[in-house]
Amino acid sequence: MARRTAKVKVIPLGGLNEIGKNMMAFEYKDDIIVVDCGMSFPEDDMLGIDIVIPDITYLIKNKDKVRGIVLTHGHEDHIGALPYVLKRLNVPIYGTKLTLGLVENKLKEHKLVSSVQTNIVKPGDTIKLGNYKVEFMKTSHSIADAVCLAIHTPVGVIVHTGDFKIDFTPIDGEPIDFHRLAELGKKGVLLLLADSTNVERPGYTMSERTVGVTFENIFRNATQRIIVATFASNVHRVQQIFDAAHKFNRKVSVSGRSMVNVVNVAMELGYLKVANDILIDINDINKYPDHEIVVITTGSQGEPMSALSRMASSEHRKLEIHPGDLVILSATPIPGNEKTVARVVNQLFEKGANVIYEALADVHVSGHACQEELKMMHALTKPKFFIPVHGEYRHLRQHGKLAESLGMPKENIFTIETGQVVEISKDHARVAGSVPAGKILVDGLGVGDVGNIVLRDRKHLSEDGLMVVVVTITKENGHVVSGPDIISRGFVYVRESEVLMEEARKVVKNALQVCESNGIREWAVLKSSIKDSLRGFLYEKTKRSPMILPIIMEV
Amino acid sequence: MARRTAKVKVIPLGGLNEIGKNMMAFEYKDDIIVVDCGMSFPEDDMLGIDIVIPDITYLIKNKDKVRGIVLTHGHEDHIGALPYVLKRLNVPIYGTKLTLGLVENKLKEHKLVSSVQTNIVKPGDTIKLGNYKVEFMKTSHSIADAVCLAIHTPVGVIVHTGDFKIDFTPIDGEPIDFHRLAELGKKGVLLLLADSTNVERPGYTMSERTVGVTFENIFRNATQRIIVATFASNVHRVQQIFDAAHKFNRKVSVSGRSMVNVVNVAMELGYLKVANDILIDINDINKYPDHEIVVITTGSQGEPMSALSRMASSEHRKLEIHPGDLVILSATPIPGNEKTVARVVNQLFEKGANVIYEALADVHVSGHACQEELKMMHALTKPKFFIPVHGEYRHLRQHGKLAESLGMPKENIFTIETGQVVEISKDHARVAGSVPAGKILVDGLGVGDVGNIVLRDRKHLSEDGLMVVVVTITKENGHVVSGPDIISRGFVYVRESEVLMEEARKVVKNALQVCESNGIREWAVLKSSIKDSLRGFLYEKTKRSPMILPIIMEV
Repeated sequence: MARRTAKVKVIPLGGLNEIGKNMMAFEYKDDIIVVDCGMSFPEDDMLGIDIVIPDITYLIKNKDKVRGIVLTHGHEDHIGALPYVLKRLNVPIYGTKLTLGLVENKLKEHKLVSSVQTNIVKPGDTIKLGNYKVEFMKTSHSIADAVCLAIHTPVGVIVHTGDFKIDFTPIDGEPIDFHRLAELGKKGVLLLLADSTNVERPGYTMSERTVGVTFENIFRNATQRIIVATFASNVHRVQQIFDAAHKFNRKVSVSGRSMVNVVNVAMELGYLKVANDILIDINDINKYPDHEIVVITTGSQGEPMSALSRMASSEHRKLEIHPGDLVILSATPIPGNEKTVARVVNQLFEKGANVIYEALADVHVSGHACQEELKMMHALTKPKFFIPVHGEYRHLRQHGKLAESLGMPKENIFTIETGQVVEISKDHARVAGSVPAGKILVDGLGVGDVGNIVLRDRKHLSEDGLMVVVVTITKENGHVVSGPDIISRGFVYVRESEVLMEEARKVVKNALQVCESNGIREWAVLKSSIKDSLRGFLYEKTKRSPMILPIIMEV
Repeated sequence: MARRTAKVKVIPLGGLNEIGKNMMAFEYKDDIIVVDCGMSFPEDDMLGIDIVIPDITYLIKNKDKVRGIVLTHGHEDHIGALPYVLKRLNVPIYGTKLTLGLVENKLKEHKLVSSVQTNIVKPGDTIKLGNYKVEFMKTSHSIADAVCLAIHTPVGVIVHTGDFKIDFTPIDGEPIDFHRLAELGKKGVLLLLADSTNVERPGYTMSERTVGVTFENIFRNATQRIIVATFASNVHRVQQIFDAAHKFNRKVSVSGRSMVNVVNVAMELGYLKVANDILIDINDINKYPDHEIVVITTGSQGEPMSALSRMASSEHRKLEIHPGDLVILSATPIPGNEKTVARVVNQLFEKGANVIYEALADVHVSGHACQEELKMMHALTKPKFFIPVHGEYRHLRQHGKLAESLGMPKENIFTIETGQVVEISKDHARVAGSVPAGKILVDGLGVGDVGNIVLRDRKHLSEDGLMVVVVTITKENGHVVSGPDIISRGFVYVRESEVLMEEARKVVKNALQVCESNGIREWAVLKSSIKDSLRGFLYEKTKRSPMILPIIMEV
């Protein structure tokens, strides 16, 4: 009887109705397991924010139940929040070798290595976590060593795809584990959670190997230096650059902190196979003729401080762009980065480089499944219930429609968002309330201390700057003994606006005199009188509304 | 002899090595004419800026030579700076009927109607401006009534394409004036200036008419309300929406200030042909069943205050999104707008609407020529010299390469940027110095009063907020009699950071005491002592660097 009403709660803590900060919890009786623990980048209106992490209030509240965090792969949107989460919730971590290699780097930075228990797994492994058995299966993605999961619960099997694509000719030789997925599907999958990132794209994502072919064609005809920018974590891409360099007798140098990091970790762990003597120090590139050099660098998203950006703006200490250098941007701009990427491309062209980017050649493929691949995943696993994950609402919605088009009943598809809980038994599933969830903003050392009021102020300051008005009055009778002094920042260029500032001072002075002659002494009234008079005056003169900060000092 | 050394100066004041604010001047002896006068949108780092306009210092300096401004079409990036420029340089304006209709709206807003002389021209017309004859030729673009120009100078013929595409089946029946362009080419074109916007795209831009076919297919199967968002100025697109609505017996209502404006102007001037009784007031849409309604609206770029955004966020006063409403975004996000568009799409989906956008169907075509169309333009006009215009450096560069691939000698191609002058005689052309040029920032009523210092302050304020430190000291001995008081904005949420703020106060107090005990009285020293101590303290505690404003009052 108890068995028949057994239920698993699916608790998305991030990644649904948003891009990034992927995190999904499953709760069965006294056991909670968590899949992934990612960060996301701040929205445009989150001024000054470094990164965004999931709200784990629910996990903290149920601390004793949490058996561990299982990682699908080593991208930031799947592991980036780990250091912050582990500081509050120290549980074991499970992941493949490369994934944990990348995690380790983070733990070191946050001085957490000794306190966190990490456990290496490999595709094919099954681990027991409380009442769950978690099975790791090989998959393909734009990072090596990615896995998808079969979570065996007392209620049924849950398949979580992680991020995936179907690549029949992957660089590491093994495609996604079709056979095991098919076997699971045949036995019966209760619930599928699947990556929705590319659901808007028809057809198939091209194989990673096609990029290698493009590299070879480009390298074959290149007569000068070649610089390739790509995501550091895309080890297979990096491997193909090394391979093409080797084929055409070029030495390879690596630039950019994260690229150096990843190349080191990947070589150490055996994920990157590099021919003898091919790797040279960036300090030595000028010892070779241009046609014998390839530089692999970060900065494919035009990030302002990245190695490629520094090369483009002549701020790179080791490498100067020469006319004729061939620069390949082996990546697609992430939505929001189009302009920064374009800026770097323009600068490189201005320096006389030839630049090859996605608009011009097939130098990049996506790491995510397109529609036909998603259909394959649904067809293989034949799930009873489906929750689309990893995407904005439009992606989740389209993925739901895709599932419907394959014959799944509408009522078995749950297009939910972060924080909404779905409760699943053998035969039923329903949305069952919600848990606290949202965006925790990280700014410097502060985690969650910047909220709406601070952001609103930053926005206001960013648009029209500020004006500080200081006046000193006497304790006895409120008579002004110094000021009003006015200081502005981010409003107008003061030297050219002396008249305006002098007039503003007079406006404040008048307002204060009116107050004094009416016997008004309350600071709150004085302050709003200063604010109101100045705001009106400035708006009339400039159609701008700087933040006005009246400060009253008493002596 | 004088004739043989006659030269025309080509003076780009905007639109080269940048997107927008297109403006090109030509100078021959005592005559200057200007083509277009556009604005552009602020870059991400131009915080608080409304729009950007060209620097016209050179024209002001040569005021007496300027014979007029010739407009190619009515888009903001070609006419948007007119009101600002005309206030400083009142010269006659020449343009087609719709273009001037849109200009008139602007002049009204800026109270310039009575003082500016506007002159309507039509394709086929030639006007005399000083030593130039300017000939207007029909072209196709994503706005009606666009023209390209043949500028007949004493040195030779200059063809300026404006923005264009080659559409063999345009909505208004007349394609670009191939015959005249061919004729000019045969006689000899000295210089071609051509639109580079889509030079990265191979093949052809589809005809505007294909969007009409998509509309018909969508409208045919729609059973509920249809809402179409597009650029207000795309009169041909709007016409096709009206046509599809008419065909499927739907009434049309218009929402959004600029859409209402343009529809009115276009109907008045005969550019929009609307069947009797089809247009209804937005207040009346609920009097009809959903399947009889089409709403045309602004907001296809996800602009936060636009009609569509307001519908999506339930802030539109006249229209509430119903589940089942079909929303069509008939536009491509302009680079930089991807996220705002995505936000609106997500909100609409969440409200239960079906949303069709570019990723899902052919509901938009570009207004700019792709590579094969550009080749056609080069082939028709067979210019001796070529200057690619309207694009970032990468576009100009690619366009230069395209010209080379057609056989033009490299030395006849000038990939220049805004401000660089090219001097052309019958046989020779060379870069000949530069003129003042750049971005003039408009913020509220201020034109050019926000510069780098103000922007740098706004950026600083936007990232970490500010801290104002006020202290009152005595005139006699510099003894502190009030304060230090600390006020912060955009830094931390004060209520949760009382300890931090109290500590900060102590840090400042200590710094002041050290100064006093050392007999230091100079304000500059006191201020930098406050700044330095506080900056170090705050960075250590928070890894943030708010702007610190020390203010000293004397009594």
